[in-house]
This record gives sequence, C-alpha cells and structure tokens, in this order.
Amino acid sequence: MGLFSKDIKSMNDLFEHQLRDIYYAENQIVKALPRMIEKASNSELRDGFSEHLEQTRNHVARLEQIFEMQDLMPEAVDCPAIDGIIEETNEVSGEVDDKRVLDAALIAAAQAVEHYEITRYGTLAAWARELGRSDCVSLLEKTLEEEKATDGKLSSLAETNVNLKAAE
Amino acid sequence: MGLFSKDIKSMNDLFEHQLRDIYYAENQIVKALPRMIEKASNSELRDGFSEHLEQTRNHVARLEQIFEMQDLMPEAVDCPAIDGIIEETNEVSGEVDDKRVLDAALIAAAQAVEHYEITRYGTLAAWARELGRSDCVSLLEKTLEEEKATDGKLSSLAETNVNLKAAE
Repeated sequence: MGLFSKDIKSMNDLFEHQLRDIYYAENQIVKALPRMIEKASNSELRDGFSEHLEQTRNHVARLEQIFEMQDLMPEAVDCPAIDGIIEETNEVSGEVDDKRVLDAALIAAAQAVEHYEITRYGTLAAWARELGRSDCVSLLEKTLEEEKATDGKLSSLAETNVNLKAAE
Repeated sequence: MGLFSKDIKSMNDLFEHQLRDIYYAENQIVKALPRMIEKASNSELRDGFSEHLEQTRNHVARLEQIFEMQDLMPEAVDCPAIDGIIEETNEVSGEVDDKRVLDAALIAAAQAVEHYEITRYGTLAAWARELGRSDCVSLLEKTLEEEKATDGKLSSLAETNVNLKAAE
C-alpha cells in the first residue's frame, strides 16, 4: 500500500481507502476492456463490452465526483485483487484458440470483474450509509445497480448463446 | 499458468481449467481463514469465520469428488485473482488498529472472497449443465448456495453490528 501513507484508524479512513481501491480498479478495467472487445467474436458480447466500457468511464467520473464532495484528491491505491483478476483473464484468454470457447472464457472473466465491483460498491454504500454520507450513497448505489445489471446480462448471454454453441 | 500444461481447446478443457483454478482458491482460503479468525474481535464474526472454515474444507472435498467423477487428479492451477484478494486482505487488515474498524475491514475482505467464489461456481455450474455433466451440477450448486448464504450472513453482520459500532 505504498500510495496510502497514513494508517487506517477510523471508519472514515477505511471508507476513503476503499474508495481509492475501487478507483484504481475502475481505471484498470477501462484499460482492460478494449483488449476484451478485440478478442470477443460474438457480436452481442462485443457490443456489450463496448457499452460497458462507456459505463465504466462514467463510473470513474462518478468516483471523482465523490472524491470532490469530500475535498479529496482522486488518488488511487494499488488493488492487487483487480490486478489478479485481470492477469487471470489475460492468461486464460491467451490460451484459447477456438473463438466460441474464448467467448465463454471472456464472459466468465467479465463476471469475475463484475462480482469484484458488486462486493466493493455494496460495502462502500453500506459504509457511506453508516457514516451519514447520504450524498455519496445514491451515487454508489447507482453504480452498484449498473454493475449488477451488467452481470445479469452476461449470465443470460452465457446461458443462451455462447455456451450452447461452444458445447456443440 | 505453469501447472496447466495443455492449451484450452474445448469447453471441456475450459471447465477443467476453471475447476483447477477454484480448487487452488479454496485451498488458499483454508490457509487464510485462521488468520482472519485470530484478528476478528466480534464473537459472532469469529464464530462465522470458524464455521466457514469447516464449510470451506468441505468444498475442497466436494471438488475432489468432482475430479474423481471425471477420472482427473485433483491438481490446482495458479489463481492470481484469489492471491490478489487475499493479499489485499492482509495489507488492509495489517494497517488497522481499532478493533471495530478492523472487523469491518475483515467483513469486506471476506465478502470479496465470497463474491469471487460465487462467480466461479456460478460459471462452473452453467458450464457443467451445458456439457451434460449433471453429476457435477448438483455438487457445484450446493457449494454455490452455501457461498451465497455466507455472503448474506456477512452483509447482515456488517449492517447491523460491526459498522454501526465502528461509526460511533
């Protein structure tokens, strides 16, 4: 946690730390998605990833708004969790030649990313509520709902399309 | 992916690879939980972690049963995602002195672990269904439901107990 110089002493510090963690994560996702779009074969999946890239840029902007609300600079802390999830995505998708199997692997990878975000935004919204930061709660919950919706779309796509084809 | 010698060519290979990934993850969680139990102050949280350690050992055994059903050796592949999630847990909890804030950080960390497992077991169950491996589906879904229940319990604990106290 080289970028996070002070110790965590209060719920407020923990909230701020988690905010910096997800800020790093969202920025890494913005960098990772173009590669996933390039690798996806199924047009619905490719379009879904493209749409999610736009949405993720918006999530970054929303986090910057939350930093501003608290007079904080939007600075990230390293997030080994998202680095690990993205590393795994690159490793697995690098090994798959069959396009339909690759799509299934990409959907699974994207769902791992979504679930990381769902858990972090869920925690942040709960902490913001407890800390009486109602100004942040609605923004955090908006993003949380969007991440859940994306995960749901990916599940449908996995069940009804890519997997069925890949299992032929 | 040094331990995974062959390329992924089919949905079957992908399923097997993901099985080896979650097998590694579950084993890492078995190693990480005793440290989390030791650090937790809230007795309900400590008991919950202890119970989940037993459950996780059972999940490992269930995965070994699935390997056996497929005449596979229960061998793991590296899973950078769970390594990153656990690394983050250790880093954040190492920085927190206040016991109640530490409990909130531990709950958040445990929920990140649960969400990783939820997404992986969800994917594995879907793939097993598509591949016609109904013998594996029920075992995977059993674990999936247990992970979801644990996540739900952690959410309740966070909302009603630790966070409220920590925000005092």
